[in-house]
Amino acid sequence: MKGQFAQRMSRTKKSFIREILKVTQNPNVISFAGGLPNPNYFPIEPLRAAADRVFAEQGKLALQYAPTLGHEPLRAFIAQRYAERTGMAVDPDEILITNGSQQGLDLVAKILLDPGDHVLVESPSYLGGIQAFTMYEPEFVPVPLREDGVDTAVLTQAAAHPQSKLFYALPNFQNPSGITYSRETRQAVSQILANNQIFLIEDDPYRELRFLGEDLPTIASFNRERAFLLGSFSKIVAPGFRMGWICAPAPLMDKLIIAKQGTDLHSNYVSQLIIHRYLQDNDLDAHIATIRAAYKAQREIMVAMIEECFPSEVTFTLPEGGMFLWVTLPPQLSAMDLFETAAQENVVFVPGAPFHVDGTGNNTLRLNFSNTSAEKIEVGMTRLAQAIKRMMVAA
Amino acid sequence: MKGQFAQRMSRTKKSFIREILKVTQNPNVISFAGGLPNPNYFPIEPLRAAADRVFAEQGKLALQYAPTLGHEPLRAFIAQRYAERTGMAVDPDEILITNGSQQGLDLVAKILLDPGDHVLVESPSYLGGIQAFTMYEPEFVPVPLREDGVDTAVLTQAAAHPQSKLFYALPNFQNPSGITYSRETRQAVSQILANNQIFLIEDDPYRELRFLGEDLPTIASFNRERAFLLGSFSKIVAPGFRMGWICAPAPLMDKLIIAKQGTDLHSNYVSQLIIHRYLQDNDLDAHIATIRAAYKAQREIMVAMIEECFPSEVTFTLPEGGMFLWVTLPPQLSAMDLFETAAQENVVFVPGAPFHVDGTGNNTLRLNFSNTSAEKIEVGMTRLAQAIKRMMVAA
Repeated sequence: MKGQFAQRMSRTKKSFIREILKVTQNPNVISFAGGLPNPNYFPIEPLRAAADRVFAEQGKLALQYAPTLGHEPLRAFIAQRYAERTGMAVDPDEILITNGSQQGLDLVAKILLDPGDHVLVESPSYLGGIQAFTMYEPEFVPVPLREDGVDTAVLTQAAAHPQSKLFYALPNFQNPSGITYSRETRQAVSQILANNQIFLIEDDPYRELRFLGEDLPTIASFNRERAFLLGSFSKIVAPGFRMGWICAPAPLMDKLIIAKQGTDLHSNYVSQLIIHRYLQDNDLDAHIATIRAAYKAQREIMVAMIEECFPSEVTFTLPEGGMFLWVTLPPQLSAMDLFETAAQENVVFVPGAPFHVDGTGNNTLRLNFSNTSAEKIEVGMTRLAQAIKRMMVAA
Repeated sequence: MKGQFAQRMSRTKKSFIREILKVTQNPNVISFAGGLPNPNYFPIEPLRAAADRVFAEQGKLALQYAPTLGHEPLRAFIAQRYAERTGMAVDPDEILITNGSQQGLDLVAKILLDPGDHVLVESPSYLGGIQAFTMYEPEFVPVPLREDGVDTAVLTQAAAHPQSKLFYALPNFQNPSGITYSRETRQAVSQILANNQIFLIEDDPYRELRFLGEDLPTIASFNRERAFLLGSFSKIVAPGFRMGWICAPAPLMDKLIIAKQGTDLHSNYVSQLIIHRYLQDNDLDAHIATIRAAYKAQREIMVAMIEECFPSEVTFTLPEGGMFLWVTLPPQLSAMDLFETAAQENVVFVPGAPFHVDGTGNNTLRLNFSNTSAEKIEVGMTRLAQAIKRMMVAA
């Protein structure tokens, strides 16, 4: 209507997480809230050297308009890494460089979703995904997570609905829950989607941050026909470049290219060349091993503190990688109330309700362990245990 | 529908311009087709130094997740420059950093457009704008351009329609036509839009590339209430960073922030810091003066060649800045046919039809003068004149 915003804007609100992050400006606050990688492991000097070489050797190329798909050698690197680490054969032209994997979510939604289409999401699901999809006015259908991944019985039912269009999965160390799909669940999910012509977004930014157990195949590897596999340099190099990618077969890629052209022509080319130079001149595996070891140690301290200090009625997940674990309070407790109490004790986290599309999850919360030192984790978890106990007494 | 792409994808096609650019890979071809700034004027060494300082002094900050609006000091610089150069008072929080101004077009369309809304566009209009808006399924209403800007009588009529939502204007050295709005037209446009509660996108990437005449106020400066003013570093620093901005008042900015969060969280932060460092350590005005002088000289040669070599039935615009001029062939000639003939002579340009939303413009074409040396302009224009004459004889 004249002078009015679009309909889609009536469904959206500002990110609650981004609002929380403002509280964490206070240096006395220990934050388990953000989803931030640990900046102590950013490869600053190697990136500085890479940038210097790019400006010196490829300045005119780096600074000019560039192809929509992205820098070919960088796409070839990504394709090669899929082959080496997952056994998937990927052509470089099946990789589109995006502004972080968040833009991957937006572009896929843009080419797929009409208003009213059903988007099947894990419950809980990644808030940024819910926000990206909301702009295209779908109906969300939550599918519960179990210990070994999404509940395939519920998924089977949901996928059969004639309006079902897309399933959104984070199979490795999910944000927010830390849950990982078993091999069997991955294969079953692929079969259910194929049976029902459902597209898949497999959002996989944490894959390389596994510190326990063994690598498992991508869901996409079982059937690539309708699969969009999203990856990112944010967790293994640095998020400030906003550099991610979509891996998809040619018929899907054709549509993504059209959407990408209209959205922003192409991704930052200077940064693509810097990251590619960095990858050529450095040992990425060694770098990732350092991050993995650090996050593993931090996760172990957090788990030990929960086991030691939290009331036994509180349950939690045991992630095999990534940056998050998930806490479930006794059903009568509200994580939003706990947030207020804990903030007074100078410790914060993200309440779980915003990760649910159906108003559930009020007694759940997300803890980030990647961006807090061992000492601070000990202090922060002690404070959080204190706050939980105070609430349980009051309840 | 199950297994199908979204409705919006049935309206889109790959950019014809991007297809043309493939022809220009041949080094014998002289191209007036691309919309590329001249890479000889990229400030490569100053940017190299700026990048080095950013990694050395602000590495952890630059590489981490960052605020959605963008780097505050960079936004303050942009706001300050509006004050100095246009007299507009702009708050830094009225600036959102985007991935080039192309993303500005997408985000504004995202928050404004419902299917069927009327988008009023100049005829001809910028192809990238048409592509961005098409994804939101509007109805396009073309409004002719005259020598002093958009036809305000036609705009008045179109704006009165109850479905009219948005007018898209490029008032300075328009891409593709090179036309500039007069002061009177700017003021009249603002009034027409206010009378009808129509939003404005004022796309202004070329403002600083004026080499003739005097600076004119932005349309937004007459009434900012529903105005989105888009700017870019692509033409005054370099396009490879994909760094632009939207300037809009708070009630519009609130919605843009929500859209930006869902779309890609925030723009590349490393590049924001590098550009800001570059702007602090260098004289931007001196740099722009160099670009301006070069483009002015190239534009003069192109105009001289047209006057000397083209048949007198061919008319053309005389841009006061920017990168393009616009040629109109006699009505019986097709610029698409001319493209084929000219490509055989190893010279290319962009036919005008794709810049029109109503199937007109078949006898028009766009010539870029920014990215070709004086010598090549002479040779290329001679070849193009040859091709036109061959076609006129044949017609």
